[in-house]
Amino acid sequence: MTQTLSRGLAVNMTAGELAALVGGTLRGDAAFKVETLTTLEEAGPRDLSFLGNPKYAQAAMASKAGVLLLPPMAAGAPGLCQNRILVEDPQWAYAQVLIAIEARKPKAAAGVSPKAAVDASAQLGSGVSVGAFTVIEAGARVGEGCEIYPQVYIGRDVVIGKGCKIYPGVVIRENCVIGDRVILQPGVVIGGDGYGFSPDKKTGQLRKIPQLGNVVVCDDVEIQSNTCIDRGALGATTIGAGTKIDNLVQIGHNVQVGRNCLLVSQVGIAGSCVLGDHVVLGGQVGLAGHLKVGDLVQVGAQSGLMADVEPKKVLFGSPARPHREAFKLQALYGRLPELFDSVKQIKKKLGITDPEA
Amino acid sequence: MTQTLSRGLAVNMTAGELAALVGGTLRGDAAFKVETLTTLEEAGPRDLSFLGNPKYAQAAMASKAGVLLLPPMAAGAPGLCQNRILVEDPQWAYAQVLIAIEARKPKAAAGVSPKAAVDASAQLGSGVSVGAFTVIEAGARVGEGCEIYPQVYIGRDVVIGKGCKIYPGVVIRENCVIGDRVILQPGVVIGGDGYGFSPDKKTGQLRKIPQLGNVVVCDDVEIQSNTCIDRGALGATTIGAGTKIDNLVQIGHNVQVGRNCLLVSQVGIAGSCVLGDHVVLGGQVGLAGHLKVGDLVQVGAQSGLMADVEPKKVLFGSPARPHREAFKLQALYGRLPELFDSVKQIKKKLGITDPEA
Amino acid sequence: MTQTLSRGLAVNMTAGELAALVGGTLRGDAAFKVETLTTLEEAGPRDLSFLGNPKYAQAAMASKAGVLLLPPMAAGAPGLCQNRILVEDPQWAYAQVLIAIEARKPKAAAGVSPKAAVDASAQLGSGVSVGAFTVIEAGARVGEGCEIYPQVYIGRDVVIGKGCKIYPGVVIRENCVIGDRVILQPGVVIGGDGYGFSPDKKTGQLRKIPQLGNVVVCDDVEIQSNTCIDRGALGATTIGAGTKIDNLVQIGHNVQVGRNCLLVSQVGIAGSCVLGDHVVLGGQVGLAGHLKVGDLVQVGAQSGLMADVEPKKVLFGSPARPHREAFKLQALYGRLPELFDSVKQIKKKLGITDPEA
Repeated sequence: MTQTLSRGLAVNMTAGELAALVGGTLRGDAAFKVETLTTLEEAGPRDLSFLGNPKYAQAAMASKAGVLLLPPMAAGAPGLCQNRILVEDPQWAYAQVLIAIEARKPKAAAGVSPKAAVDASAQLGSGVSVGAFTVIEAGARVGEGCEIYPQVYIGRDVVIGKGCKIYPGVVIRENCVIGDRVILQPGVVIGGDGYGFSPDKKTGQLRKIPQLGNVVVCDDVEIQSNTCIDRGALGATTIGAGTKIDNLVQIGHNVQVGRNCLLVSQVGIAGSCVLGDHVVLGGQVGLAGHLKVGDLVQVGAQSGLMADVEPKKVLFGSPARPHREAFKLQALYGRLPELFDSVKQIKKKLGITDPEA
Repeated sequence: MTQTLSRGLAVNMTAGELAALVGGTLRGDAAFKVETLTTLEEAGPRDLSFLGNPKYAQAAMASKAGVLLLPPMAAGAPGLCQNRILVEDPQWAYAQVLIAIEARKPKAAAGVSPKAAVDASAQLGSGVSVGAFTVIEAGARVGEGCEIYPQVYIGRDVVIGKGCKIYPGVVIRENCVIGDRVILQPGVVIGGDGYGFSPDKKTGQLRKIPQLGNVVVCDDVEIQSNTCIDRGALGATTIGAGTKIDNLVQIGHNVQVGRNCLLVSQVGIAGSCVLGDHVVLGGQVGLAGHLKVGDLVQVGAQSGLMADVEPKKVLFGSPARPHREAFKLQALYGRLPELFDSVKQIKKKLGITDPEA
Repeated sequence: MTQTLSRGLAVNMTAGELAALVGGTLRGDAAFKVETLTTLEEAGPRDLSFLGNPKYAQAAMASKAGVLLLPPMAAGAPGLCQNRILVEDPQWAYAQVLIAIEARKPKAAAGVSPKAAVDASAQLGSGVSVGAFTVIEAGARVGEGCEIYPQVYIGRDVVIGKGCKIYPGVVIRENCVIGDRVILQPGVVIGGDGYGFSPDKKTGQLRKIPQLGNVVVCDDVEIQSNTCIDRGALGATTIGAGTKIDNLVQIGHNVQVGRNCLLVSQVGIAGSCVLGDHVVLGGQVGLAGHLKVGDLVQVGAQSGLMADVEPKKVLFGSPARPHREAFKLQALYGRLPELFDSVKQIKKKLGITDPEA
């Protein structure tokens, strides 16, 4: 194959313009012309880079970048870079540069593709774009400025707020509600049936319980690729405002996720769990059904929750325990051979023989 | 966003009609008019609710619902509710009410959307509906009464039985066979290639082994959102009648799943496993390849199976052990600090010093 | 349902032709006519089967197959089969027969479906087929001989090499690069946004960091159903040549996967990890972010990596340890009850009483 990797992103702004964009203080040449934005290691003399994480401080000081976004404490640090833009939060400054670059990208033209299938009773706000082969069913409403990519499915009576971005292959089933500025990455399924069956005790047959609730996704939520959020059996499954859900996550029926939570990839949350605000679940974490998880709880990757959690707890392990305890237990687990040896030695010294010996 | 959550589902039936619908015995006013179906906590004086799980008995007795679906033993229990419908299985009675409500919902009109692409050689039974942008390839057959939503892909020579419901974004690749009354939620993939590669010992290159088998999904199976069932390498991957598979589950090539199994979300089953009937696998469970799992086996969430399992076993942990043993080991694991302390104390008393000390 | 399972695959070749096809040595009747290819157990006197794994040697010797693909060491082994084709790698010989069978299957006709939506500025090589309801956006390039199924989304300026196969429901977002002979199974998402947010320390709000990099998938990669590969934040997420990725795998932004790796189903790799060549990750393995994993590393199913790994290590467990150590620790873990009993006995003998006793 022909490699077509480009090195960094075109910026084409002066150091002074960049400082103004990010609200920072420039130490250096305001007229210095920046060509591209790239990593600390790759950056050359015409490039912009940033120190997003203090642990890369040395790489920042060794970087050949022409301009760096740095925290104020690095104003006078030794280092190659002669043009330093000082900001409280260099990661966010970097994000602001990306936002400026992104704003230059071509946008989908407003309007409905003649190849889409939009029901006559559906209502589209002003400035909405709808791509080819997208279906919008009867009674659905899409708020102003939404960008609906091709091949999206928007079911009957779905309500979508303003300024949303919905990528190809997303399916939103009937009656679900999406807030403002929500982003749904490709392949997301909103409102698939919850997993509810009633076993017939005589025959062992599993009889489907209709799932007639819906999903409510609040403002500023982002849900990433191929994640599934099941509709409530009765009532709603809800995702609180500002929450960000990674790829391939499973949210069961009637779960309530709070605001500004981070649910990392491949998390699975069984039905009827209630999560507070600012909850962080690491990758591949699993929650048993009907649990209550307090505000600001953090759970380490691959952990399994089987009980309610008080606010602010930091947990780890399967079953999850307070993280210090979990780390201590893991360390002791690694020392089991030594412990078995000690006990063997003691038993020998005491003349204790095993029954089977 | 404007919250548009509705409280409960419209019922509009009398207590007497409801008792007849669910085959229960009414204690109370047969003419009592029920407006909505909702949860025990939310229910008000014109609402219907139910006691689906004995652990909510207190909530049922405290509920302000106008009518409750209750087990016979709760006929005379103290409580607010004056209209009680007594049934052996209140959860199933509740499901029957939902089924009645669901039956009132608008159905897709029979007929093929002019925006679908159905090959001239495909055969559709009577009353089949096919949505916009759905593709049905040459030689495929779809049984009577199937509801095929928009944006579905039905490959060459696929056979689908009667009365199936296939949601948007489902892909069924060539030659797969689907039984009667099967439900496929959005994004399900049936018949993707199995993961089969033959390493070249000289070069380390991984050479693809064509996967020329298929998938056979038997009657009354439901497969939920974004789950993947790979086609056999040679022969079929089979899902037994009545089995229910949750979201984001992985079924490898040539797996045979029995009847009436429950495979909870994010389960992964490696190639060539054989599961009996009534097997229950909790969320995120993993099975190594080529295992045999007997009838009625139950495996707790996040467990990992690495060996065959006899019928009726209840297992837990990774690697999975009989659940009582697994729980005991977990409890002892939590007591490791105490054990290490004891051994330290004993060694001190006996004057045993560690070699490194 | 009507079962429509076929037994095996039609071969219709002579033993001599088969020996020539796989480059093997025939011991037996070159004119012997083979009807179907099937498993050792199912094979009858007109069937071909193979010994792919030495542990099935007994089944091979007991097989009623008319012709067997066997390793040279089995040339004179006792057994029923009179026609033996001897080859160094019988699994690969079997794959070669499958490839020959597959070559007879009908192929999509070259050409663009009139029901596809291909932008006028997109460039398609010779012999490309594009199915109904597929979208190819402006500036995209598709190399010669690619088979693009229906309902595929190929974003703006995407570059795809020669001879690729892209199944229904695949989404490739803007600017991503796909090599030659790449296979993407249904529902794969290439180039969804990475999971990058910058928390506002004052409000706790999670602000999106635009993800403006891309994904580069090198030659001869296969990615299976519903797997997600996120685009880089800045720069590329890369999948090395010859790597094979199973279903429902998560690859975070800026991950670099080496060549000829095997990533089994439901693996999750957090952002910025760097994997060497020939790495094998078992099912449901998770990797924390920013890890370096050397060439030829193997990690057992359900393990969790939290630290860098040297080349050639074989790891297991969560957190992952060298596999011998992990297996030993697991065995000792199972003997904890015995250890607790021993310590209790010792304490009794020594007259040690617990503080709380």
